[in-house]
Amino acid sequence: MAEKKTTPITGITVSKEEDFSGWYTELINKAELADIRYNVKGFVVYRPWATISIKKMYQKYEELLDEKGHMPLIMPSVIPESNFTLEADHVKGFAPEVFWVSEAGSEGERLTERLALRPTSETALYKMYSYWIRSYNDLPFKRYQSCQVWRYEGKMTRPFFRGREFHWIEAHNCFATEEEAKDQVKEDMQMTYQMLQDEFCIPIIFFERPQWDKFSGAEFTFAADALMGSGKVLQLPSTHLLGQNFSKPFNVKFLDKDGNEKYCYQTCYGPAISRIYGAMIAYLGDDKGLILPFDLAPIQIVIIPILIKGKEDIVLDKCKKIYDKIKEKYLVKFDNLEESPGSKYYRWEMKGVPIRIEIGPRDIQKDQVVIVKRHDGKKIFVKENELENIIDEIRKKYTKELKEKKLLDFEGQIEVCYEQDSAKEAIDNGKIVCCGFCSIDMKAYQCAEKIEKELGAFVRGKKVDEEKHEFATCIICGNPATCTVYIAKSY
Amino acid sequence: MAEKKTTPITGITVSKEEDFSGWYTELINKAELADIRYNVKGFVVYRPWATISIKKMYQKYEELLDEKGHMPLIMPSVIPESNFTLEADHVKGFAPEVFWVSEAGSEGERLTERLALRPTSETALYKMYSYWIRSYNDLPFKRYQSCQVWRYEGKMTRPFFRGREFHWIEAHNCFATEEEAKDQVKEDMQMTYQMLQDEFCIPIIFFERPQWDKFSGAEFTFAADALMGSGKVLQLPSTHLLGQNFSKPFNVKFLDKDGNEKYCYQTCYGPAISRIYGAMIAYLGDDKGLILPFDLAPIQIVIIPILIKGKEDIVLDKCKKIYDKIKEKYLVKFDNLEESPGSKYYRWEMKGVPIRIEIGPRDIQKDQVVIVKRHDGKKIFVKENELENIIDEIRKKYTKELKEKKLLDFEGQIEVCYEQDSAKEAIDNGKIVCCGFCSIDMKAYQCAEKIEKELGAFVRGKKVDEEKHEFATCIICGNPATCTVYIAKSY
Repeated sequence: MAEKKTTPITGITVSKEEDFSGWYTELINKAELADIRYNVKGFVVYRPWATISIKKMYQKYEELLDEKGHMPLIMPSVIPESNFTLEADHVKGFAPEVFWVSEAGSEGERLTERLALRPTSETALYKMYSYWIRSYNDLPFKRYQSCQVWRYEGKMTRPFFRGREFHWIEAHNCFATEEEAKDQVKEDMQMTYQMLQDEFCIPIIFFERPQWDKFSGAEFTFAADALMGSGKVLQLPSTHLLGQNFSKPFNVKFLDKDGNEKYCYQTCYGPAISRIYGAMIAYLGDDKGLILPFDLAPIQIVIIPILIKGKEDIVLDKCKKIYDKIKEKYLVKFDNLEESPGSKYYRWEMKGVPIRIEIGPRDIQKDQVVIVKRHDGKKIFVKENELENIIDEIRKKYTKELKEKKLLDFEGQIEVCYEQDSAKEAIDNGKIVCCGFCSIDMKAYQCAEKIEKELGAFVRGKKVDEEKHEFATCIICGNPATCTVYIAKSY
Repeated sequence: MAEKKTTPITGITVSKEEDFSGWYTELINKAELADIRYNVKGFVVYRPWATISIKKMYQKYEELLDEKGHMPLIMPSVIPESNFTLEADHVKGFAPEVFWVSEAGSEGERLTERLALRPTSETALYKMYSYWIRSYNDLPFKRYQSCQVWRYEGKMTRPFFRGREFHWIEAHNCFATEEEAKDQVKEDMQMTYQMLQDEFCIPIIFFERPQWDKFSGAEFTFAADALMGSGKVLQLPSTHLLGQNFSKPFNVKFLDKDGNEKYCYQTCYGPAISRIYGAMIAYLGDDKGLILPFDLAPIQIVIIPILIKGKEDIVLDKCKKIYDKIKEKYLVKFDNLEESPGSKYYRWEMKGVPIRIEIGPRDIQKDQVVIVKRHDGKKIFVKENELENIIDEIRKKYTKELKEKKLLDFEGQIEVCYEQDSAKEAIDNGKIVCCGFCSIDMKAYQCAEKIEKELGAFVRGKKVDEEKHEFATCIICGNPATCTVYIAKSY
């Protein structure tokens, strides 16, 4: 029954604590998540182990969006230049990042109009919205698509964190009133907490972004930041209040109950699933490799036979029997390769399989199996007839335990500062700085530039729902502070 | 409880039988499946009603591929020109259809290497396969991705049937021996029958395509044709025996058990889900609109209250009660808009909802509801306490009945011909011609060209598994026939 032999693998050779970047690169390779050898800069291949989890993440997110009244659609991936340039701020923000399709056919014939590979779909969709939305009866109008987008990134790329092509969901909604649009933004933030914190175990904080860092074309941007290795934050889903900035140039109007034609209020929301996956594996993993929420693991349980000469058949039979018993309910792998159990432990720990079942001749004598849980490393001896109940119990608790263990206290990473020097020191020590600031409007842009230049860090914005504001002066210019902001390095 | 009023719709105004093309266009519009007003030629928007079914089709297909040992991955959507040109026949075949990304950024800076928007992914993937496949232990190596592809089509486009961007699955497999590759092609054909005929109710025939019509770079192509309206066939999934045509230029080698390095034998298979969706709705629909297999319907049951003045509340309450009872198990819509029942019937028939439940005051008196099935139009009176059982029964039979009713006898559409004149007449009458042909190798190309020019039809190839060959001479040149072929107009 034993299958073919493969090369053994061992754990990650650098410590996540000491060298996050090196650790992440090794994790990507050894767990076979992505391949950076594809020969176009900034484009990587997602291998099966990552792809399967990403598909599961998409499914969870889409179910939640459906539940909240969104409907899916599929848009063309190219946007004609004439659409793309309709909203001035939008084009200014995104034009530097656009890949242009400008030729076609064997002779490379020039297209009559250049086509942007969508960096985001506002300018594709809202032209259609102007056809579809007629009256208040059509509102609220909530749609999403699951797709990839392309951005000609100047920054260093890193698999899943940042690349020139990434995979996301974009939801685009239209409302009759500004109030409803604001409520949608709140719902988007709630959905983000539900998905990222409860399902994917990534703690986040939502910030209202400064005006110079908002989505191009938006009135306000609210973005989730997660704290990653080496004290840097990573921007995760953001939701944008577009007001009527797009509905006017794109003519997205409706006939209201009062008989008047009005422009819609719009919002958009963009959870980047591939990036969230990167954040999740970076955040949860350890020096043995991946750790995954139970539901997202491509294999949830691996069964490993402990073979002793002369007793191979008894053990393999028992493993097979148990495999058959649990495979209907769980994603189970019976690893019967000709390889030492130790190598197998390494491999499946690296891959983040939540439950390992070991079965040897002595276990069979005692009517037991050994269970080892990946997320806490704990070993349990389980009577064979209790196995299914115990697995059900573990499943129920696994993701929750992982979340609680890992729900890093952001507060502990935050240092309150009153002067630029202490702020610089805190940033250098991998902390997030909390301080007074003149404002998050454009007039504070010069102070923010100074932070970028001198601290190598960024103003992440005002914490959403934070009431208190206790600082008297701006940490940079010394003028009266109007708000409390958070400053951090970022990916 | 009643909601807002919307404009009533009526059935399709032209007959499918008389004007298939006009009928299809109206179906696409009135059932809100796609929108052709997107302002890039050949690119259409898939609206929610189509998108939801397409997602379900993807899921079924992916589950089957997983079950057959394939694993999913995600490839970049751009292919560097240097990869693209590695296999000579492939580039010759696909170059005329390529969209090129050649510029990026605000200034439209020229890229150092042009990037093809993938028309298909052989030349992207196989470079990676050369890294991943090392020894016979890695074989068979079976991967797929669900993605869109782009083709700069010259032909007339039509939503779902043919467009410049479409959505498919592509599976790419590597084997140690030619025999295994051939077995894979057989498995691909079996999967196609299982999905298209059993799940999507589209009858197909597999043909070995003539050499001039094979996939560029393949040794042999086997493609499914479905008979659509107005006697034209539509090519559906095809599977290709690539031999070592790609493994040699892409260096996809493995170390065999005998210690020798060998090139893999490869196959690829490409079910175009969006096109299959088009074929399905075209094939199953009628003059009232869509008909869908039960599992693929975005809404499976619609509940329509029959309101009579003074008794609105009783009826709406009963509808709500039944809605609550069945919604856990089925996708149910309670249509309580202020609109006549007749308009609602039209709407949901147009949308292809399999079961309509009507409830009026008299039904409540009799403890019954009225059920109307979309696929056969039959009306049943059902006691309320039997409703769930009856729905379960209908669900079980619905798709099967649809398949049997619609499993059009290809044979009846086929006319055996011995002369070009009678063949022309048969083609003009919307038939498929069966006749003798010199061969399906390149040497018969001139005869095929003549058929294209003079009959406006195409040699679809030899029927897979057809034993008999009874024709003495080629219908065109009169030379001895070596095979029986089928000729038809095509989309």
